[in-house]
Amino acid sequence: MRYDIAIIGTGPAGVSAAITAALRNKTVLLLGSAELSPKMRRAHLVRNYPGLPEISGSALADAMKAHLNAMEIPVTEDRITAVYAMGDYFALQGENLYESRSVILASGIVNGKTLPGENELLGRGVSWCATCDASLYRGKKVVVIGYDTEQEKEADFLSEVVSEITYIPMYAGETHLKREISVLREIPKEIRSDEAGRHVCFGERTLDADGVFVLRNAVAADRLVPGLETEGPHVKTDAMMRTNLPGLFACGDIAGRPYQYVKSAGQGNIAALSAVDYLAEQEK
Amino acid sequence: MRYDIAIIGTGPAGVSAAITAALRNKTVLLLGSAELSPKMRRAHLVRNYPGLPEISGSALADAMKAHLNAMEIPVTEDRITAVYAMGDYFALQGENLYESRSVILASGIVNGKTLPGENELLGRGVSWCATCDASLYRGKKVVVIGYDTEQEKEADFLSEVVSEITYIPMYAGETHLKREISVLREIPKEIRSDEAGRHVCFGERTLDADGVFVLRNAVAADRLVPGLETEGPHVKTDAMMRTNLPGLFACGDIAGRPYQYVKSAGQGNIAALSAVDYLAEQEK
Repeated sequence: MRYDIAIIGTGPAGVSAAITAALRNKTVLLLGSAELSPKMRRAHLVRNYPGLPEISGSALADAMKAHLNAMEIPVTEDRITAVYAMGDYFALQGENLYESRSVILASGIVNGKTLPGENELLGRGVSWCATCDASLYRGKKVVVIGYDTEQEKEADFLSEVVSEITYIPMYAGETHLKREISVLREIPKEIRSDEAGRHVCFGERTLDADGVFVLRNAVAADRLVPGLETEGPHVKTDAMMRTNLPGLFACGDIAGRPYQYVKSAGQGNIAALSAVDYLAEQEK
Repeated sequence: MRYDIAIIGTGPAGVSAAITAALRNKTVLLLGSAELSPKMRRAHLVRNYPGLPEISGSALADAMKAHLNAMEIPVTEDRITAVYAMGDYFALQGENLYESRSVILASGIVNGKTLPGENELLGRGVSWCATCDASLYRGKKVVVIGYDTEQEKEADFLSEVVSEITYIPMYAGETHLKREISVLREIPKEIRSDEAGRHVCFGERTLDADGVFVLRNAVAADRLVPGLETEGPHVKTDAMMRTNLPGLFACGDIAGRPYQYVKSAGQGNIAALSAVDYLAEQEK
């Protein structure tokens, strides 16, 4: 099936885009966590979402989830690692492959910079996707650098395939991992590679492995979509949330500051309507 | 008192701006209808305000009003007819005169074009503000062209001052006016002026008067703020909702399409944060 509009991300921007797109009778593929954005879930108190005063991030996520449910908009839980412009449609690569006539990026921004060596070694011993690349490391030794608690599930899954696994949490608080996973609490400085394998470096010490998984909730936009114009961590858009790639739109944190729920929801609405306009234009 | 941020308009853009500005500990002057935007009140059903599914415009306005109340943000019911940039502050002219270090325009767009002759004769027999100019027509004959039911109150007030008054409703539905006001249901084509007085023209027929009041909820942006750059009915802004005038911001319908509640609320949030940044910059 080729969708009209694929939306990557289930924060306020993605949810808002999905709602408006569905009301315009478009077929919508909404990709992300079914529990909606973990970042929103963690927000203690949101005080400036007009109409919902003093609401916890979790309650706001519940309200948005209820809105999706009421409109029968499902969430597809898949992590998209690449989006390719194919001419008159886009191919979205995750655990599965999807096709859509237009795409809205609402995947938030990467928390923290990429590690030195990370971009350079991607696909050559470094991976951003456990589900995609686990089989390459069957019976081997891997290191997982996880940027949020969601990545623990990925590490658990990897542990079933690889022979040895070390998990490096890039966040405070306890980890809840399978017993066979070693946890190392130290901030890596760099990833290196040579004939002997991959090396995660911490100042003096290094940790050797066959593969290194760097797992975050969001993938840097220009890595996600080849050819996409960015400005620092943000995708460049015009006021109608159009990017430099026709048919591809961006909204929410990934489209720039301020990082605010209602701003993201507003931009999601604009992006959806711009996608609708784009589709109508294509049909002429 | 000189406010930090004056906000003109109590639709979703103005309300959102006021909430965010107040959370940033700024003194806020929120100007408009205390019942919030009459346009929002009239919306039958809003289906794409994320988190509040299938809500009537009136219930959405109530929710926003409750949010303002919870934060103890009052609404000042005054119709601003001119905003002047005074250097390091702005002067806002309504029934009263206000001063503010920055201004956010969130007054929506004018429903319908101005009438031929209207702009040209403004201040010379044509007025946009009953409260401001009633005394000029004491004991005289006036025509009131009202674009929404809210203007009936203004006509009632004028009837206490002038000697003869004709009300032309530019909307469907009943009018509820004082008995001494004649109602004429005919769409005016033009306003003219000569030595004999002002003439409201309807094709062949004309209605003569000393003064003509053209009353709408919103005033065309470039008439409201001298020197403001506009594009058709919209104020030109950048992505941070800044206009060409430093310290003056615009958001919501007046800043361009799409005309959507959540888009307006999102832009109100951005405008407030931009105003906060502007104030911080001024204090350096």
